[in-house]
Amino acid sequence: MEHRLKQFSKYLKEQSIDAAFINSTENFFYLTGFHTDPHERLLGLLVFPEADPIAVLPGMEKGQIRAAGWKDEVIGYADHENPWSMMAEKMNEKGITSVHSVGIEKQVLSYGRSESFFSLFHDVKVEDIEPELNEMRVVKDEHEISVMKEAAELADFGVSVGVEALEEGVTEMEVLAKIEYELKKKGVAEMSFSTMVLFGEKSGQPHGNPGDRRLRAGDFVLFDLGVVWKGYTSDITRTFAYRSVSEEQRSIYEKVQEAIEASLAISKPGTRIGDLDQTARDIITDAGYGDKFPHRIGHGLGINVHEFPSMSHLNNGVLKTGMTYTIEPGIYDPEIGGVRLEDDVLVTEDGYITLTKTPKELRIIE
Amino acid sequence: MEHRLKQFSKYLKEQSIDAAFINSTENFFYLTGFHTDPHERLLGLLVFPEADPIAVLPGMEKGQIRAAGWKDEVIGYADHENPWSMMAEKMNEKGITSVHSVGIEKQVLSYGRSESFFSLFHDVKVEDIEPELNEMRVVKDEHEISVMKEAAELADFGVSVGVEALEEGVTEMEVLAKIEYELKKKGVAEMSFSTMVLFGEKSGQPHGNPGDRRLRAGDFVLFDLGVVWKGYTSDITRTFAYRSVSEEQRSIYEKVQEAIEASLAISKPGTRIGDLDQTARDIITDAGYGDKFPHRIGHGLGINVHEFPSMSHLNNGVLKTGMTYTIEPGIYDPEIGGVRLEDDVLVTEDGYITLTKTPKELRIIE
Repeated sequence: MEHRLKQFSKYLKEQSIDAAFINSTENFFYLTGFHTDPHERLLGLLVFPEADPIAVLPGMEKGQIRAAGWKDEVIGYADHENPWSMMAEKMNEKGITSVHSVGIEKQVLSYGRSESFFSLFHDVKVEDIEPELNEMRVVKDEHEISVMKEAAELADFGVSVGVEALEEGVTEMEVLAKIEYELKKKGVAEMSFSTMVLFGEKSGQPHGNPGDRRLRAGDFVLFDLGVVWKGYTSDITRTFAYRSVSEEQRSIYEKVQEAIEASLAISKPGTRIGDLDQTARDIITDAGYGDKFPHRIGHGLGINVHEFPSMSHLNNGVLKTGMTYTIEPGIYDPEIGGVRLEDDVLVTEDGYITLTKTPKELRIIE
Repeated sequence: MEHRLKQFSKYLKEQSIDAAFINSTENFFYLTGFHTDPHERLLGLLVFPEADPIAVLPGMEKGQIRAAGWKDEVIGYADHENPWSMMAEKMNEKGITSVHSVGIEKQVLSYGRSESFFSLFHDVKVEDIEPELNEMRVVKDEHEISVMKEAAELADFGVSVGVEALEEGVTEMEVLAKIEYELKKKGVAEMSFSTMVLFGEKSGQPHGNPGDRRLRAGDFVLFDLGVVWKGYTSDITRTFAYRSVSEEQRSIYEKVQEAIEASLAISKPGTRIGDLDQTARDIITDAGYGDKFPHRIGHGLGINVHEFPSMSHLNNGVLKTGMTYTIEPGIYDPEIGGVRLEDDVLVTEDGYITLTKTPKELRIIE
């Protein structure tokens, strides 16, 4: 964390930003090592080019940030106190009085909080610090990778529990409940998003909601799930056939599998990110399913389950060693159902590995 | 929904706001009847004093908002499209060209999105529309109350599952997993926040995290949980003693019970909201535990689990018939553990009812 804070302070100095205010739980965790979500209460981290940082959080969490190893200043405020004026006071104390340019996370900080923050100074210039933090976070270090491997292993386990739970007549929600139950017993406190278990025609909705649809022979079964583990996320999708598979279902499945394999195959340092999408999209489009793949190929993965970069065909950035992201092509038909296959990918020096390991070959569950 | 949209348009007209942009999933749901969370993708609702509203969402959710009954305009954008310029175009088409004052949710809309929105116009005045939406949402209608009763019943059920699961040596996470498993089987897709199951000294942390602490005789057991049900939330806390209870534990418990009962007793139309906190706080302070009750008495409850109003002793607002909120006093000792009791409350014409029904008398689980 100290290393990261130093690097970020250096950036502020280079950019002549006199004070940065971090408000996202994710960047707060990344820079302090303390993970908390105080909901509507204010959480913040003030970082400066020279002075030591100041953490701002609800007073009742002061003990916890200390326990997490934070050694710098903490402002712990009570519900009836005004954290903004406490920040002003503390900055005054520290001699930080000449602030002409401030950094905020433009896509995170609310307009209202930006007003409160700016009001601590006189007529400041506003810079967006999010791109720099995104860039810092995009390449994972060894510790992050080892945690993400564990998170991915738990996602694989979740899929295996789901497969075990399949039987004629079971509902989507019953299967979902079993998956989360087994994951919770392994210590998973939080899923990284609402678990998706979709049967038959419902798998044909890219964003469908699990309900009381019962499993029948001939259904596709789509699982999309992930966990939050030690502050990091995983995200896997697998689709299975239940009891039987039609020719059309098989052809859809095979195209998606071909698309993900092709996109994985070009995952290595230097690859243009947009090509990951384009490669998969070309395969699906050439097979006549272009209009049935209505979303980007994937997204960065780390502290957030959806983080920088957004992997659309327009992204001209390039892959770097240590990047982690998802690859998740899909074909969705409102009647036949849909297939999506998704792996969590780590770029290595000479290619990639998938952190998720569940096989991607078409499997017909008996 | 149409009634709510009409009321909100009327407000815009009265305030001379030419265009309002709603970005929160909650207010979007409140005004459209469609509940969705597109994460980092843009969700929005443009509302005008005279013209019909326009919903903005990822293209793949267009079918779902129609299925939810939305009959007005929808902009469904693809990932590579710019929803802001699509909004500009659509407003142009509708002849909405003279916008001098815009309304946003100041505490929700990010600074970055506010820049994008403002750039559609020339030099606009910015108004905060959140207070009006908060006021509209604070009093629940019959449908909302009936859904919240169901949500509270599910929370009560969750506590009863937790009590059943208690046995010597079980871990917090094992009990938590059972609670959520049984709720999921009843069709609960989402908890309203991370479920809390805390044993012994861990119950002494107002915001503790469940882990592998094992249950022992003499422990307090604290459950804090709630569900999201048909778009509405519940939130209950109960504390039990396991096998035995010390004199000090009993005295803490009884003070918290006295505090919640006193605060409930004054819940009726016209009561100053801050008095709910003050009444409970006085009881706890007089008993010598004032410094061990470090949070406000409660919060509004509805579409959000924490919503307007924030119920601190400073709140000079008054209770109104149809308001729903939590009352949740607590006393926390880092060694002995903590007690919190929390009910979901509905203000009725002549008093209140609690939506949560689990008894609050001290119960020693054998």
